[in-house]
Amino acid sequence: MFGRGVVTLPQRSFDDMFVAVIAGAADCAMAPIENTLAGPVIRNYDLLLEHELTIVGEVVLRVVQNLIALPGVTLAEVKRVYSHPVALEQCKRFLAAHPHLEVASASDTAGAVKMVAHRGRRDEAAIAGATAAEAYGAHILAGGIESNTRNFTRFLVLARPDRAAALPVTAEPGRERKTSVLFHLARRPGALYRSLAGFAEADIDLTKIESRPIEGRPWEYSFFVDFMGDRTDPPVARALAHLAAHTENLRILGSYAKGEP
Amino acid sequence: MFGRGVVTLPQRSFDDMFVAVIAGAADCAMAPIENTLAGPVIRNYDLLLEHELTIVGEVVLRVVQNLIALPGVTLAEVKRVYSHPVALEQCKRFLAAHPHLEVASASDTAGAVKMVAHRGRRDEAAIAGATAAEAYGAHILAGGIESNTRNFTRFLVLARPDRAAALPVTAEPGRERKTSVLFHLARRPGALYRSLAGFAEADIDLTKIESRPIEGRPWEYSFFVDFMGDRTDPPVARALAHLAAHTENLRILGSYAKGEP
Repeated sequence: MFGRGVVTLPQRSFDDMFVAVIAGAADCAMAPIENTLAGPVIRNYDLLLEHELTIVGEVVLRVVQNLIALPGVTLAEVKRVYSHPVALEQCKRFLAAHPHLEVASASDTAGAVKMVAHRGRRDEAAIAGATAAEAYGAHILAGGIESNTRNFTRFLVLARPDRAAALPVTAEPGRERKTSVLFHLARRPGALYRSLAGFAEADIDLTKIESRPIEGRPWEYSFFVDFMGDRTDPPVARALAHLAAHTENLRILGSYAKGEP
Repeated sequence: MFGRGVVTLPQRSFDDMFVAVIAGAADCAMAPIENTLAGPVIRNYDLLLEHELTIVGEVVLRVVQNLIALPGVTLAEVKRVYSHPVALEQCKRFLAAHPHLEVASASDTAGAVKMVAHRGRRDEAAIAGATAAEAYGAHILAGGIESNTRNFTRFLVLARPDRAAALPVTAEPGRERKTSVLFHLARRPGALYRSLAGFAEADIDLTKIESRPIEGRPWEYSFFVDFMGDRTDPPVARALAHLAAHTENLRILGSYAKGEP
C-alpha cells in the first residue's frame, strides 16, 4: 500500500491501533473489517463509530491459516489451540473434525504463536499465518486449515481526517472507487427502504450493509453501508443527499480505491 | 414460556442445543440471538442457517451482569476475569476502568463462575448473573457492571418444524406478532432495495436486518430480516410473495408472539 519504505508499528489491540493514529504516533491504521468466512470484525466497526477516522484505502488479502506448534510435536500431542476468535472461526471445520483440541481465544494470531513457542509446551498449538511460524521458530503441523480456500480478509486503511489528504495513498490505475457511510435510522416502517432509494435509482451497487446496536436505545441501530463509486461522482453525490435527508447523523467515512486480492 | 412444570436440559454449547432439538432429546431450544449492548450472537445466526429449526416464540430478558469471586476476595486481588464473550462485551466500560483485570473467554457465564468456585483461586473472577453466584457459593464483588442499564437479550424459542404445532407455546393475549425470514440476495445494484419494497408499501415495520457471509462466495451474504406481523396476515403474505420473487432461497423461519421484557 505504501511501498517498501514504510515503518510498521505493531499494537496490542485494535483499540490501541486507533489511539496510535489519533495521537499522531502512526499515520495510518490497517484495520481488518470483514472476513469472507467469519464475517464482520465487530470491534473495528465499533471503533469506527467511536472515533472520527477517515477511510483512505482498502486492502483485500487471501488468508491461509495453519496449525502451528513446537518442532517435532504431533497433532495427537496437542490438547489446546490458541488464536484470535476470527481466525478460529475460519477454521471451524478443521476444529470440529478434531474434537480433542480445546480452543482458547488469544488477542492476535502471531502473538498466539509467540506464546506457544516461548512456553515450550508440547500440548499447545496456535492458529496463524506461516510467517509467524517462521518468525518464532515454530513448526506447521497442518497447513491451509481454513474451512474454504475462498478465504479473504478486507482491511480498511484509516487516517486522521486532517492528515488524510497528505498521505501517499496510491492504487494501481483503473481501480474502481468505493465509498463507506455510517448513519442512524429511526424505527419507522419503510425507513431503510426509503433511505436506499437514491442508490437504487442511480444503479449504485451496495456491497455491504452492517448494523450495530446503539447503547441505551434498545432495538435501534447504526448502519454501515459500503457502495461502489466516489462521493464526488454526481450520481453518488445525489444518492448521498437523498440518504442525508432520510437518515440521522450521516457520516461519510471515506471514498477510496477498491481493494483486490 | 412453558410454565413451571417444564424440564430443563442444559447443553455445553449452542451447537449441542440445536442437536438436542433435532435429535428429539429436547422439544425446544432457547437461543440468545441478540443483545442490546453487544449485538448479534453470531453462532446462533449461523446455526439457524445450518439447521432447519422453526421459531415458535421470543423472550426478551433484562440482563444484569456481576463480577463474581470467592467469598472474601477483594477487587484488588483479582487479576483475571472469565466470561462468555457476549457478556464481556456488555461490561466493556467496567473492564476498561479496571485495566489490571485480564479478560479471558469462557463458553458460558454460569460455567465460568463454577470454574472459579471450584479452582479456589483468589486472583480469578467471573462475570455472570446473580443466580450463578448463589448456586456455586460465590460472592458478588461488583453488581450491575453492564455498561448501560438498558441491557436486554432477545432469545428465540426454536423447535423442529414437524413438532412445532403440538407445542404448548402460549403468550399473554394482545401480544403483537412478528415474523423472521432468511434469504440470499444476488449482487446486483438495487437488489436489497427492490426486495424490501413489499414491506415499505404495506407499512410493515422491519425490526432487524442481519447479514452473514456465504462460504465459498466471497462478498455475498445471507440476510436475516425480522418484521412485525404474522405470515398469515394478507399484507404480510403479499410482502412475502414480493420478497420470494426478488430473492433466492427464501426461508420463513417462523411467526410468533413478540417478546417483551
